[in-house]
This record gives sequence, structure tokens and C-alpha cells, in this order.
Amino acid sequence: MRMPVLTSSSTAVATAGVVGSTGYAGRELLRLLAGHPHFDGTASTADMRAPVSCDLVFLALPHGAASELGRELAGARVPVVDLSADQRGVWTYGLPELHRVAIAESGAIANPGCYATAAILALTPLVEAGLIEQHVVVDGKSGVSGAGKTPTEKNVFCSAAEGIAPYAPVGHYHQTEIERELSAVAGAPVTVTFTPHLAPFSRGLLVTAYGRLTGPLTQEEADEVYLSRYGAEPFVQVLDQVRTQPVRGSNACHVKAWVDAERGAIVVAAAIDNLVKGAAGQAIQNANLLFGFDETAGLPAEGLWP
Amino acid sequence: MRMPVLTSSSTAVATAGVVGSTGYAGRELLRLLAGHPHFDGTASTADMRAPVSCDLVFLALPHGAASELGRELAGARVPVVDLSADQRGVWTYGLPELHRVAIAESGAIANPGCYATAAILALTPLVEAGLIEQHVVVDGKSGVSGAGKTPTEKNVFCSAAEGIAPYAPVGHYHQTEIERELSAVAGAPVTVTFTPHLAPFSRGLLVTAYGRLTGPLTQEEADEVYLSRYGAEPFVQVLDQVRTQPVRGSNACHVKAWVDAERGAIVVAAAIDNLVKGAAGQAIQNANLLFGFDETAGLPAEGLWP
Amino acid sequence: MRMPVLTSSSTAVATAGVVGSTGYAGRELLRLLAGHPHFDGTASTADMRAPVSCDLVFLALPHGAASELGRELAGARVPVVDLSADQRGVWTYGLPELHRVAIAESGAIANPGCYATAAILALTPLVEAGLIEQHVVVDGKSGVSGAGKTPTEKNVFCSAAEGIAPYAPVGHYHQTEIERELSAVAGAPVTVTFTPHLAPFSRGLLVTAYGRLTGPLTQEEADEVYLSRYGAEPFVQVLDQVRTQPVRGSNACHVKAWVDAERGAIVVAAAIDNLVKGAAGQAIQNANLLFGFDETAGLPAEGLWP
Amino acid sequence: MRMPVLTSSSTAVATAGVVGSTGYAGRELLRLLAGHPHFDGTASTADMRAPVSCDLVFLALPHGAASELGRELAGARVPVVDLSADQRGVWTYGLPELHRVAIAESGAIANPGCYATAAILALTPLVEAGLIEQHVVVDGKSGVSGAGKTPTEKNVFCSAAEGIAPYAPVGHYHQTEIERELSAVAGAPVTVTFTPHLAPFSRGLLVTAYGRLTGPLTQEEADEVYLSRYGAEPFVQVLDQVRTQPVRGSNACHVKAWVDAERGAIVVAAAIDNLVKGAAGQAIQNANLLFGFDETAGLPAEGLWP
Repeated sequence: MRMPVLTSSSTAVATAGVVGSTGYAGRELLRLLAGHPHFDGTASTADMRAPVSCDLVFLALPHGAASELGRELAGARVPVVDLSADQRGVWTYGLPELHRVAIAESGAIANPGCYATAAILALTPLVEAGLIEQHVVVDGKSGVSGAGKTPTEKNVFCSAAEGIAPYAPVGHYHQTEIERELSAVAGAPVTVTFTPHLAPFSRGLLVTAYGRLTGPLTQEEADEVYLSRYGAEPFVQVLDQVRTQPVRGSNACHVKAWVDAERGAIVVAAAIDNLVKGAAGQAIQNANLLFGFDETAGLPAEGLWP
Repeated sequence: MRMPVLTSSSTAVATAGVVGSTGYAGRELLRLLAGHPHFDGTASTADMRAPVSCDLVFLALPHGAASELGRELAGARVPVVDLSADQRGVWTYGLPELHRVAIAESGAIANPGCYATAAILALTPLVEAGLIEQHVVVDGKSGVSGAGKTPTEKNVFCSAAEGIAPYAPVGHYHQTEIERELSAVAGAPVTVTFTPHLAPFSRGLLVTAYGRLTGPLTQEEADEVYLSRYGAEPFVQVLDQVRTQPVRGSNACHVKAWVDAERGAIVVAAAIDNLVKGAAGQAIQNANLLFGFDETAGLPAEGLWP
Repeated sequence: MRMPVLTSSSTAVATAGVVGSTGYAGRELLRLLAGHPHFDGTASTADMRAPVSCDLVFLALPHGAASELGRELAGARVPVVDLSADQRGVWTYGLPELHRVAIAESGAIANPGCYATAAILALTPLVEAGLIEQHVVVDGKSGVSGAGKTPTEKNVFCSAAEGIAPYAPVGHYHQTEIERELSAVAGAPVTVTFTPHLAPFSRGLLVTAYGRLTGPLTQEEADEVYLSRYGAEPFVQVLDQVRTQPVRGSNACHVKAWVDAERGAIVVAAAIDNLVKGAAGQAIQNANLLFGFDETAGLPAEGLWP
Repeated sequence: MRMPVLTSSSTAVATAGVVGSTGYAGRELLRLLAGHPHFDGTASTADMRAPVSCDLVFLALPHGAASELGRELAGARVPVVDLSADQRGVWTYGLPELHRVAIAESGAIANPGCYATAAILALTPLVEAGLIEQHVVVDGKSGVSGAGKTPTEKNVFCSAAEGIAPYAPVGHYHQTEIERELSAVAGAPVTVTFTPHLAPFSRGLLVTAYGRLTGPLTQEEADEVYLSRYGAEPFVQVLDQVRTQPVRGSNACHVKAWVDAERGAIVVAAAIDNLVKGAAGQAIQNANLLFGFDETAGLPAEGLWP
């Protein structure tokens, strides 16, 4: 790949093209890049050759639409972060908390799905430590921006407001994405039952994950597992209370596990902003790693609350 | 107990006292009773002796507050439906879809909890038929009216709106209520991992329940299990899509199971209005049974949507 | 017109066809007719001749779409209530609080617009008594169901939720409807500045109307004006506090005027459910009058709250 | 007053104490100061002497609570920005678009109320140019964070959600604040009828202001009046559409006037984030002016949307 020519000095600036800047994720990329100290973001037209003059390309197109362009860019050794599902499982999986080193060395990053980000961050500490059985349940709740910008019968206000509903109750495409990553962490097959829900707010995503303990575990031990796994992570915070509101607009993931010792069960909640840590923010975190910038550059750690 | 003196004729009217009519459930009782053809509802003061002049007493007080009064009324053989958790496990459990006959013959009804109602209705067909393993996961999402009327840091608008959060992630008091009923249905111990969430709407409750199949099951077979179990039920509807919005204001429960054959898993969603089928409506359904009225009298089957 | 053959006995039933039953207003008509003691509602296809076999036709089609059918039905002397704007100013204006007698004697009713209903009810007592100058300001706030069922860029959740916006800030077609009625009440031209807003809830509509007093008026006098004008009205309640939530699902209009004596100004708020008193409920109220039924038959006076 | 010792270089840092950092406005001050290039914000205890060691003090206490402390600080010549209403009308009124020079030269700033900010910005161009009569109507709509953090019957979710309501319909304390400023702009008494409403979202505030034109005015002329008045303002944008959602989290004010030539009326809408331009952001804008920093330092001009 074309090597980024910039180093992590405070004045270095790289140009970043955003292909697909009219969707929610693309818009959010431009918003965050506008405050980034090292990237200078510009919206690119859908023209296939335009972005190649950038130092980096973010693909924020609907699934399928960027597949060919992504391969072309990668072939031309232009660093690219693809926010669609097209290259997940092919390219380097852009979840820094699991693949920081590989991301920094790669030029073609498949940015994780929003549910997958939260689910994998929720469960990795337990799976890594062999503390739960290899079938898990993941119940996801997403704000309506996760359903995209195009008006439909599902995301029209009077359908989505003032209530909650499951959708794609089995077979959602993030299910295999979560299974693939958790299986890699476990070194053995992990299966997941995953049901997403459409919840009546604009931004924010919560997963509640349920596992069966492989042996006795106290609440204190569980806390320690999470604190030691995530203590050094700039964007993952282990808190007593997990809600989506405080992460709105930030790249943070709030996480907490609760042990039900009597039943040998454990419940984990993880909250993110689906458009930031679940999309545009994580894409910039990956780009920061790729260019050797401070991983947190341009990314708010604190949300907008209330 | 004192036998109800009325029969199910269209002109029969019984007087019903509502103790605790200022809370959401009590208010809803008065609203529904105002349109009831056979009950004449009146708010009762907290005075312990006042309601005894009624033909029936609904106790809609906070948990613990009605415990003594409930026992007094039952002792005096005054028919009583207690909406609090105080007598659950002691008195007849007022879930008509499971205990219709016992309810009609009893004079002391413990009205089920809102989450328990939805969870038990979601899982009973599978448990009854031995189709799932005896540990299940129940993820509950309730509107904010479920958190009561008293203003707190949790139910103030800016905390509860525009996001979602788990609360009482392990050990919620409905957990054992669900376990007790499902174990009775199974004839063997069923354990439940149950986590409730506070979701940003006023009314409505959804549970998403997750089980592991004990053997192969097709989607068609699952549909048939639910349709045959609930086909004759006046308030349980098996639908392709389950959302809380369409049940708002009604005594309906919408339910659907989806099979993930590949992973041997099944997901069931059940939606109710937490203040109607989850509280006041079910209490009236129980009272209708107790007095020999049409079970559906005074209870809307269709919700207010949008 | 064809005379309604039924009298106001409790067993009389007339058949009512609903043309346009898939929109929000049509759906609401069917919901309310399902509980109506004297009307038997059925959804009619768009077929022009089908509804003529009904005793009454409700037209709940988009503006313009029912214009020809409306005239045909009226020509055939079939009683008709048109919920669109097409015949307003032509047919009898179906606001019972102003035109009760004319409605009962007419067979062709133009059902008022939702904003117009609230604005006219808010201001009529003051205009009638000559208490305000003849230019008024009406600021309207409607829930998103008022924007119709078809998904658009305006009513998609992420556009409409979590904020508020004016639309059609001058020249909304309800403006002349309000002016026409208030001018008739005043017996002199009344002009209105009217700006509607899209507010983030499904149902409900509030108008806040602002007038300049023509002379001194105390708060007590203002209260008396409203109480004497509306004291006998079954659906208009003069309250100290006006909010849209308590009227949800009901045909009620809550109203209150506040005097700013120091500045010679008066502020009036009126709240309705835009789909009930602002559409389907008022249409049924008109039909009740037309058929000589109890004006309140089938219409809830109490809303669903919370 | 004590002169700020810092100049507007990129490295200059002044210390800012926030008294009252647990309320919404105080919290927002700390959030914004955390990203400010020149201020180093710290939460101050309620202790009266602690903040004096800061270069600047923000008072973010409830109305009345900071009155004495404010006077002490001003007496000690410590620069202070008071977000409460206590010193409005006494100290320099901190609306930069009207009083930029005076603010820069003052050491004691009374930060405007949220409704007043939006209303004055909406109407100033028309009042300044003598284009409207001297009585205006202001209809305000605020998100629930405007009602403060303490849980009450009014701001509890089930009261405030899913509907809208006026409060303090006459006599709200911002009324005289708006009148005082607009009268100063006009050089003659302007009276205002002002009614605020509680709308179901967390952040954001809209005013819709209504005036009577003193003479003919075209839409193009009105546009030109606003563009020329605000074209150079860093935070006021004249747009075709005004909504609160796009200003969430930003210090922007979006404004637009629409002419109803036929009726000689004009409608103006102005949207702000009540916690930013309506409170903490404007306080920082004032502090920037006071210290000679770039007026926009640390203040986002773009909001978080969706």
C-alpha cells in the first residue's frame, strides 16, 4: 500500500475523502473531521476516481454500493476505511480494542457494524478468559438513525416513536460478524442468538448480552476481569450504570457485567453512540491508528447530556 | 368467601372499590371501569373499612402497603384483586390464560406483574410442549409509567428520554415470579435470567425471550404451537410482527416466536400495555371471571395507534 | 337528502361506510365506530358506487381525492361527512359547538381541519363577546400524525423527533378557514396570523392564540366568559391547565384563557387529539347529530393518560 | 476590575471556576470548557472564597442563590459571568450580538435567559429598522432541560413526554427581559406577550415571534434585513428552514422571517440549544470577549444531528 507520509506531529495534516457523505454516517464523519487536528475531510462525489487524490478514503456508502470501489482503492494502495459490511471478514477488522496492531499495519480496514462493536466489546473479556459457555444471547436496541436516512414505513415517526419492536429477529447480518470475532477470541466456535430492536430515540445503541458461567464467579472477580481488560483503553469505560444517553456524540463505550451467582449466569450491558463508536468515530479511530496519530485525536470521549 | 350475588346478565352491576386510585394503575382501573357494563367503580379512600361495602375490591397500592388490608378483606370473604406483588405465590395467580378455572372459583386473586405477564405468555407454549431447555433468557423493555408516578432521578424526563438503560439487571423481583409459574407449567424447575430496561415511552412493555430447542423444530411447527395454544384466547394474538405501539390502551398481548434452526435456538417476543394487560386490564379480566361476566367485558381488544 | 330512517333509540343501528380507511383518520374512524352503539362501520373500497348502500358515508381521503365522489353522494342525497378540506366553505361546516342546529338539518357536512377546530374553539368566546381586536395570532403545534402516514423527509423519525420546527409559516390553508369562521362569529372581518409547528409526539394538537383586549377584562371575567359559553358543551372543558396528553384518544377539547391586564393582552390555549376531535371523533359527533343520536355516542370524553 | 492578564495568543490559558457545576448549565460549562483552547475550567465548591483564585468565575446557580456571591466577586474586581437572572438589568447584558463592545470592557456580565436570547435575536432586526409595531407576540417552546434537573411533577417523563403544554402563560420573568432589551433597541417602549411551552425533547428552544408591519415589506426585503444584520455574526445563521435539531450541542442561532404581505404581518422563528447559546455557550462567548480571545473559541458552530 501507499505509505502514509505523515508522522504524528501536531501540525501534520492528511486529506481524507468521504464517499457517501449524505447518509448519517458520512455526515457524522464530516462533522468529526471538521474538528480533527490532523485530517482535513472533504466530501467526495460518487465519482470513482475523485477520492484517489486523497491520502485516505472513508467509504460510507450503503452495503454493496462500495464493493468495487473499495477493491480498486485497495488495489491502488490508497488507505481506505470501509464503513459498509462489504469487506468484513476480508479485510482487517477495524475494532481497535481487539486488533490495534494489525490495524496500524494495514491499509484496508473493514469498519465493524454498530451492534457487532457493542456486542464484541461486551463479551470479549468473558470469552477471552473462558468464563462463559460458548453459546450467548445478545439483545440489541438501536436508535432510529441505525435504520438509515431514507424514509420508510419502519422509520417514519408514527411507526417508530412511543414504543419498541424487534426486527430481523433471527438471521441479522451482524450475527455472523459477532460469531466470527468471538470465535477467534475463544479459539473455538462461539454461537450467538442475536435479536435487534428499534427503539424510539435518534442516536445510541445498547446491547444486553447473556452468558452461562463455566464455573463460580463473584461480582468482584467479574469487575476485575473488565477493569483489567479495558483499564488502558481510551474509549471503553467500566461503569456501575450503563445508559446510552451519556455517550451521545462521543466515541465512548460504557460497559458493565453483573453476576447472577445463584443461577450461574452473567449479564453484560454495553452502550455506544451508533453513529460514532458504532460508525464514524470508530472509522476515525482506525484512521488515527493507520496514520500513527494519537488514537484519540478528534474524538470526543464525553457525550452530550442531557 | 362471600359469593358474588350477580349473574352474567347484561344489566347486572356490581360495585368495585379501588384502593390506591391516584397511582397509574389505580387511575387506569377507574378509566376502564367507567366504560365497564357490569362494574361500577369508585375510588376508595385509604380507610381500611370503607371498601368492605363494595362487592369487589381492587388493591392498587405500592408493594407492601396493602398487605394487611388484603388479608383482612380475604378474611372477611370480600372478593379482592391485589395488583401489588404482596400475595403472589400465596393467593390464586391471576393469569387467566393459565389459571382461568381457579380464578373463577377463587375470591382472592394476586394480579401478575407486568413483565411476568408478558414473559409467561411468551414462553408457556414452548415450556408446556417441552420444546426448550429449562434455562431461558428474558430481556424486558418497559415504558416509563412502569417506574411509577413519583418523580425520581430515574424517571425525570432528561434521564429517561432519548436513550435506554437496564435496571435491576439481576435479581428483579419478577424473576422468581416467572420461574415459579414456568416451573409449574413444566413440572420441573425452570430458571430464568431476566434483565429489565427502561425505554423512552410512556406506556407499553416488550419482552424478548430466548430459549434453546430440545430438538429440531421448524418455523411452521412453532407457529402451530402458538396458534393452537392461543387461538381461543380473547386477548392473545399471534402475529407476524410484534410492537408495543398497537397494544397501547388495550388488554391485548401480541406474541410471535422465531426459530433459528441452524443454532437450535428460538426467540419469542410478546408486547402488552403495561398498565392494561400488565395491570388494570388484567385485574378487570380476573374480576370478570370471578363474577361470571363475559371475560372481555369493558376491556378494549384494539389499541390506540398511532 | 335521504332522510335517516332511524331514531335515537338504543337499538337503532345505521351502517356507515368509510372511504379511505387506510390513512390515520380513516383507521381512527373504524376504531371509534367499532365501539359505537348505533353505527356499524365498514371500510369501503375506493369504488365509487359501493358506499351508496350505506346509510352514511365518511370520506377520509386526501384533499382533492374525494371531491367528485363527495358531490355525487350529496347529489344522491346520501348523508356524507367529508373529512378533507374540499367542501369547507361550501357545505355545512361541521363544528357542533358553533353549528349544531345546521348540522342536524344538513346531509352534507364538511368536517373542520384540526388546527381550525382548536383555534376556533379557543377564540370564539372572545370574538363573540367583542372582547378582542380583530387581528389575532394563532400558534399551532401538532403531533406528527397530522403530517399523514406516507413516509417523507419531514415525518421520518430522525427529522421529527427530539426537536420542533415551524412549517408553512404563512399561508397554511387552515388560515382562511379560521378567518372565515371567526369573521362569521364576529359579524366583521377577523384576520389571523397562523403558524403551525411539527412537534415530536404522535397524537395531539395545541393552539396558543393571542389577542389584544378591546377594553379592561379581569381574569375572573375571562373565566366566566368561557364557562358560560362552554359549560353545557359535552366535549369542551375549561380547565386551569391545558396539555395535549390528557386528551389523547378522546373527543375532548381542553381550553383556558389567561389575561395579561397590564398589557391589555389575552392568551388562550386549546388542546385536542388531532385524530379525534380534530378529525374522526368530530366526524362521528357530526354524524350523531345528523342521525339524531346522542351527540356523545361512541365518543370517549376521557383520554388515555399517561 | 482586575484586568485579565492574558492576551489572545494560542497558548494563553486562564483559569475559570464554575460555581454550581451539578446543574445542567454548570455541567455544560464544564463540558465546553474541557475543549476550550484558552480556559481551564474547574468545578468550584459552593465555598464563597474558593473561586476568587480563578481568573474568571461562572455562576451557574439557581436564581437568587448567587446574588450575594455575585456582588462580592464584582466588588473584588474578579471577572464574573452570572447565568442566573439575578443581575439582569444591573450588570452588562451579555448578548454579544447587541452589546459586544460593552461586554469586552465589562467585568460583570449578566448572561441572558434562554427564551430572551432567542426572542431578542429574532426581533432585533425588525425593531431596529422600525419595521414592526411596538407590540409583539412571542411563543416559546423549550426542551425539558429548561425546567431544571430536580425531579418534579412537571418534568417527570410521563407528564412531559408525548405532548406539549404552556406554562407561566402570562408573567414569565423573561417577558420583561425581552421588553427591556427590545425597547432599548427601538428607543421606545416595546411590549411583549410571551407564553412559554414545555415540549418533549431534552435540548433545544424555539421562539416564534409575531409582529405587525408598519408598512409594506416584501419577502426579499425582509431577507435582506436579516442577512445584513447578521451576516457577520459568527453564531447567527439566516436559513430558509428553522428547526431545533440541527443546533443541538452548538452555540448557533438559526433564524428566519416570513412576510404575510396580505395581512401586513411578519413571523420570525429562531432556534437555539437552550443549554448552549441559551446558557453555557453564550457565557463562554461572553468570557471570550472579556478576555480578548477569539469570540468563537471552544464553541461548536455545528450541532449534533441526528
